[in-house]
Amino acid sequence: MSVSAARGFRAAGVAAGLKASGSKDVALVVNDGPLQVAAGVFTSNRFKAAPVMWSQQVLDAGSLRAVVLNSGGANACTGSAGFQDTHRTAEMVAALLTAEGIETGAAEIGVCSTGLIGERLPMDRLAAGVEAAFASLSGEGGVDAAHAIMTTDTVAKLSVIDTNGFIIGGMAKGAGMLAPALATMLVVITTDAALSTAQADEALREATARSFDRIDSDGCMSTNDTVLLLSSGASGVTPDSREFTEALTEVCSSLARQLIADAEGASKEIAIVVESAATIDDALEVARAIARSNLLKCALHGEDPNWGRVLSAMGTTSATFDPDRVDVAMNGVWICRGGSIGDPRGLVSLSGREVEIRVSLDAGLESATVWTNDLTAEYVHENSAYAT
Amino acid sequence: MSVSAARGFRAAGVAAGLKASGSKDVALVVNDGPLQVAAGVFTSNRFKAAPVMWSQQVLDAGSLRAVVLNSGGANACTGSAGFQDTHRTAEMVAALLTAEGIETGAAEIGVCSTGLIGERLPMDRLAAGVEAAFASLSGEGGVDAAHAIMTTDTVAKLSVIDTNGFIIGGMAKGAGMLAPALATMLVVITTDAALSTAQADEALREATARSFDRIDSDGCMSTNDTVLLLSSGASGVTPDSREFTEALTEVCSSLARQLIADAEGASKEIAIVVESAATIDDALEVARAIARSNLLKCALHGEDPNWGRVLSAMGTTSATFDPDRVDVAMNGVWICRGGSIGDPRGLVSLSGREVEIRVSLDAGLESATVWTNDLTAEYVHENSAYAT
Repeated sequence: MSVSAARGFRAAGVAAGLKASGSKDVALVVNDGPLQVAAGVFTSNRFKAAPVMWSQQVLDAGSLRAVVLNSGGANACTGSAGFQDTHRTAEMVAALLTAEGIETGAAEIGVCSTGLIGERLPMDRLAAGVEAAFASLSGEGGVDAAHAIMTTDTVAKLSVIDTNGFIIGGMAKGAGMLAPALATMLVVITTDAALSTAQADEALREATARSFDRIDSDGCMSTNDTVLLLSSGASGVTPDSREFTEALTEVCSSLARQLIADAEGASKEIAIVVESAATIDDALEVARAIARSNLLKCALHGEDPNWGRVLSAMGTTSATFDPDRVDVAMNGVWICRGGSIGDPRGLVSLSGREVEIRVSLDAGLESATVWTNDLTAEYVHENSAYAT
Repeated sequence: MSVSAARGFRAAGVAAGLKASGSKDVALVVNDGPLQVAAGVFTSNRFKAAPVMWSQQVLDAGSLRAVVLNSGGANACTGSAGFQDTHRTAEMVAALLTAEGIETGAAEIGVCSTGLIGERLPMDRLAAGVEAAFASLSGEGGVDAAHAIMTTDTVAKLSVIDTNGFIIGGMAKGAGMLAPALATMLVVITTDAALSTAQADEALREATARSFDRIDSDGCMSTNDTVLLLSSGASGVTPDSREFTEALTEVCSSLARQLIADAEGASKEIAIVVESAATIDDALEVARAIARSNLLKCALHGEDPNWGRVLSAMGTTSATFDPDRVDVAMNGVWICRGGSIGDPRGLVSLSGREVEIRVSLDAGLESATVWTNDLTAEYVHENSAYAT
C-alpha cells in the first residue's frame, strides 16, 4: 500500500505519455492532515536538478501539503527554463487543491523528477497527467504511485510498518546511478504519527544515513536524489523519537535492499561487512572502496573468489589497519588471513544470488555494512542504450 | 627494440611455464654500464606486492645492475614466504652475473611480477626460466622481454627515442587494474644518457606524473605497479635535465597511450580534456571523476552523447567551478553550455575509436588531460573469468 497506508494520505499514479512505453509516469501524494509536517534529504551532487532545488527551498518551512512526481525526464541541467517548469508544476497542484476547497500555495508542494538528464519536460502532457492523477487520488492509490515513478526498475518498491499505534509506509524507485549521498532514487515516506518538524528531520537524516547511504550499486551519484518524509498526525499518536527513528530506519532499509535487489543487470546482491574497525567512518570507507571495484564486481559475477581484488581496493583507503593483520572471508570461508593466503579458494561457493564479503581490520570495535551488486554485461548493455 | 635499444643494455624474454598458455613469461634486463644509475616509482597501494617492497628497498642505493621480471603470478599478498621468493630470485640473477665475472649482490637486482594476486610463484620453474633468460641475453632481446611481461595485453608496448646523442627505450605491460598512482603495469625504461641518481629520480617522477598517472582505464589500483629507469651512461652524453625529462616524458606518454589502446575489452580510447581550471589539481580531479563514471563509459560504448553523465560525475568533486558556467563538448560539439542544454545531441558522432570530451570550467587558466576507455561486455567477460 506504500504511501497511502498511513491514515491521512491519498495517492495516485497515471500514464501521461512522458514515457514512450505508455506506462504510468505521473504520481501524486496528498497529505490531508491534520498536520502537514515534512522533512527531506537530497543529493549532494553539485549539479542539482530543478525539482531538487525547488523542493529543498520549499522544505525550509518544514511543511508540505502534497508531492508530485514524474518519471520519463529528470528536468536536470535544464537551466532557468527547467526551474520554471518545476514551479509551474507545483502551481498546478496547488490550484487543483485550492479548487477542492483546500487553500494551498505552490510553496506547499514538493516536486520530484527522474529520467534522462538534459532534456526539457513536455509540459502539456505533464499538466494533463497532473489533472488525471488529482482526479484519481484515493486511499488505495499508493501502489499506482509507486509504479508511476519507475524508470529502469523492473518492480515497484514498497514498504509498510504498523507499530505502536502509528503507521509508516514508503515507496522508492532507483536501479542505476545508485551510489551514496544519495543514490539515484526518489523515495516518499508517509506516516500518521504526529511529529514535529525537528523530529521528522532528525529521524529522516539518521534513517537515511543508515540505509540509503549504505548502498552503492554502480558508484554513480545522481542529480535528482530525493527522500521525503510526510507526517499527517492522523493516528493521534506522538511517538517516542528513538522508537520512531528505529521504525523509519526499518522502512528505509527495506526499500534500500529492494533497490539493490532490482539494480540494473545485476545477478548478485553483495553485502560487504567491515568489522573490527577503529571507527564507523573507517569501516564505511573500506566497504565503499571495495563496493566500487569494477574488477571485484566482475569476478563475483563470474563466481570467482578473487580476494586479491578485495585487498587491492582496500589498499587505496586511508583507514586505520595494518595490511599484515587483515582477514577476508567470502561466504564464510576465510580465504585471506593476515593479509596473505588463508583457506583454499576452492572451498568458497558463490553460486547463489546473495554474497557476503566479510573483512576484519583488527583495529577496533566498530563495524558497518555496505550493499552493492556485481558488474554484468547486461548492465553495460542497458546503460549503453539508455538515451536512444 | 625497447629496453635494449640504448647502448650498454642486454635483454631477454623466455617461456618458463609460469603461464598455462606456454607464452614467454620471464624477462631479464642487464645494465652493462659504465654507470648503473637507477630510479623507480611504485604503486601507492597499501598492499604492496613482495617484488614492490623488494625493489623499493634496493633502490635506496640509487643503483641497479639488472631487473628480472615475470608474468604468470603477481607474488602479492603472499606474506613473508612470498618476500623470500623475491629475495631468492634476485640472488639467482646476482649469482649468474657473478659467475660471468661481474661481481654482483642481490641488492643490485630489481624484481617485478605481474599476474594473479594471492598465489605463490612456482620457484622451480622460475629458477629455470631465469637461467634460460640469462643464457639468451643480447642487444636485440628487448622485444622478447616486452612479450614476456604481457598478461591480458594483446600486443607488446615499446617506445624508443634517439635524440641529442642519447637513446631512451622502454617497454610496458598493463591492460586491466589500470588507474593512477599507478596503473597495473610494469614499465622498464633504459637510457645510455649519463645521469646522476638525483637526475634520474627527478626526471622519472615528473615524466610519470604527466603520463602514466594520467591514464585511468578502470579505476582499479594494482598492488604491483612499478616503473624503473636504468641509466648506463654508455653514450658518454650528460644531458641537460630539462631536455632529458622532456624526452623521457615522450617515451612514457607513448607507452601510456599504448596501454589505453590495448585495455581489456575496450572499444574506445577517450581523452578527457579539462580546461579553464583554477589549478592543475582541479583539472585532474574533474577529469578523473569523469573517467570513473561507469554510466558514462557505458554510454560512450553505445555511442550515446549522454552529457548528463559527464555533469553528474563532475558534480561529485570539490573543484572550483560554478555549475551554471560549465561547458561540455563531445568530439567538438558543445552539447552543454552554461550547465544546461547546448547544441543538439544529434550533431555528435561517436562512431570512431577515439573520443574527445572537452570540459571548460571557466574558473582559471590551467588544463589537464586524462585518458580512459569505455566499459564493455568484453571487459566484464574477461574479468569474470580471470582467475579460473
